[in-house]
Amino acid sequence: MRAVYFDGKCAQYKADLPVPVRESGHSLIRILLANVCSTDKEILKGYRPDFRGIMGHEFIGEVVESDRKDLVGKIVAGELNEGCGTCLYCQTGREKHCLHRKVIGMSKDGCFAEYMTLADHLIHPLPQGLDPEVAVYTEPLAAALEITKQVHIDPAGNAAVIGDGRLAFMIAQVLALTGVDLTVIGKHEEKLAMFADFASTKLVNGYLDAGKYRELSADECFEYVIDAAGNKTGIELAMHLVRKMGTIVLKSTYAGKTDIDFSFFAVNEVTLVGSRCGPFEPAIKLLSEGKVKFPPVDFYDLSEYEKAFSSPAFKAGFKIG
Amino acid sequence: MRAVYFDGKCAQYKADLPVPVRESGHSLIRILLANVCSTDKEILKGYRPDFRGIMGHEFIGEVVESDRKDLVGKIVAGELNEGCGTCLYCQTGREKHCLHRKVIGMSKDGCFAEYMTLADHLIHPLPQGLDPEVAVYTEPLAAALEITKQVHIDPAGNAAVIGDGRLAFMIAQVLALTGVDLTVIGKHEEKLAMFADFASTKLVNGYLDAGKYRELSADECFEYVIDAAGNKTGIELAMHLVRKMGTIVLKSTYAGKTDIDFSFFAVNEVTLVGSRCGPFEPAIKLLSEGKVKFPPVDFYDLSEYEKAFSSPAFKAGFKIG
Repeated sequence: MRAVYFDGKCAQYKADLPVPVRESGHSLIRILLANVCSTDKEILKGYRPDFRGIMGHEFIGEVVESDRKDLVGKIVAGELNEGCGTCLYCQTGREKHCLHRKVIGMSKDGCFAEYMTLADHLIHPLPQGLDPEVAVYTEPLAAALEITKQVHIDPAGNAAVIGDGRLAFMIAQVLALTGVDLTVIGKHEEKLAMFADFASTKLVNGYLDAGKYRELSADECFEYVIDAAGNKTGIELAMHLVRKMGTIVLKSTYAGKTDIDFSFFAVNEVTLVGSRCGPFEPAIKLLSEGKVKFPPVDFYDLSEYEKAFSSPAFKAGFKIG
Repeated sequence: MRAVYFDGKCAQYKADLPVPVRESGHSLIRILLANVCSTDKEILKGYRPDFRGIMGHEFIGEVVESDRKDLVGKIVAGELNEGCGTCLYCQTGREKHCLHRKVIGMSKDGCFAEYMTLADHLIHPLPQGLDPEVAVYTEPLAAALEITKQVHIDPAGNAAVIGDGRLAFMIAQVLALTGVDLTVIGKHEEKLAMFADFASTKLVNGYLDAGKYRELSADECFEYVIDAAGNKTGIELAMHLVRKMGTIVLKSTYAGKTDIDFSFFAVNEVTLVGSRCGPFEPAIKLLSEGKVKFPPVDFYDLSEYEKAFSSPAFKAGFKIG
């Protein structure tokens, strides 16, 4: 079969890989669409140095073989993290944190391929009529919904999202549904324009005065600040923007340490919530009902992987099946 | 009147200060007992360089003059933070975070004196029969109760308190009341012995191997880790001890920055909750009912302030009235 393979350093297009053989409890999925995520690009930069295998973790496919006959023929989305099933984390609803988990496209063959296998319990059938080109956003939208799973958002409050990339867009769409007074803060005027329909937008520069963050009144600050900046400037700005007794949600992951005055959190009683992968079912529901909308993806053939990987976030995917 | 006064550098005993004159909305309190807190010692080290005035913020006293006639003659405890009453924080239940607040013993005359004034709404009458030597623990116990106000503690979970000082003792007593499986981790065997009645105890050294934290299984880690260490080793150990999707409560405040990999929080979905002053009424209730017990305090005369300030935490207070 055809696939985009990571050899430990680079991506390669391969046309002659064997179709994977499913184990018991796993389904064989024919991949229809797959999206490129910034994590895929991080892997090319060395984020997973020990990984060798097929890349990709956001997909829509058709189940072609399964022990679960009700799944066969279904169009499905699927979760990334397959735990060991027996450890404390697996047995307390935290499979995605299992220390022995396999992650598609990161420690096990992924979805930039004609076929992939996945544990049955990670598979989510899509409702009939949901366009696969919309449904392919299920996984990143689920990650945004992890925020409202973890944190109660008071709709009478106000919230800021730091970042203007794809994850920030998902998060802002989800927060907008709560009715909260929403501001998106980014560095790029042209990207911020995409948020204007459902949020106020501000440039990071607007908070700077001679290179330093200017002092803010309580009214200018936010009860909730979501850091989706993707680098360490995000947490610094978040600490500046959050109200006392407010909440910072940290979505950014990036290499390196940040020098922080931890007393800030105790003195101001600020809560910091780390947030990662989220629930698929509400993501599928919101996409089905058209409650969230994302820009269309440009789909490439697997052999055009270089074009797909160099396309801006948001825009690139593979049309496979 | 007699008082212990901070002149910007040192504490001084003064015998000839005027009795304060109360403003409208404030009561005049005759101080009976006052406790020395580690914050008082921090002030002597330069924590509040701009402060000049009478020290102390933990007290029990008798209201001798007030607009509120129901308070006169009552034995009371009192809160520290007097807000402006009009700002966003004051109007949303966050008076203790008011940017313009006055804090007794830190930015306004405190309780190491024969008399003090305090805003009426910060005054809490004590139930009859509650021993003032017990009730004087109200303020620090309230700070411990801020944790259970902020964080739902699942009694079927497990919790670790890092620290073996006075604050750690209060926190451990409060957590023990939830029924949670509780471990206290400290550096001093003789201090840890005080916790043995209601918690497992461990030496920090038990987590070290050749000077580094040894690797822990999920079973050895904790759903809740409360950092009351009072220095930056606390947060480092807390990040090592907390389970994935667990919660760290940060009670420590200390000067200086800490170099932290913030991705730790996002990747492991750990929540960090900063926590400070807390609710007085449940503290008074628990003390009245004998549900929490603290070691007796050694009381000194105000003129013996040097002895009181050099006594170990937990032990020292002033008997004034």
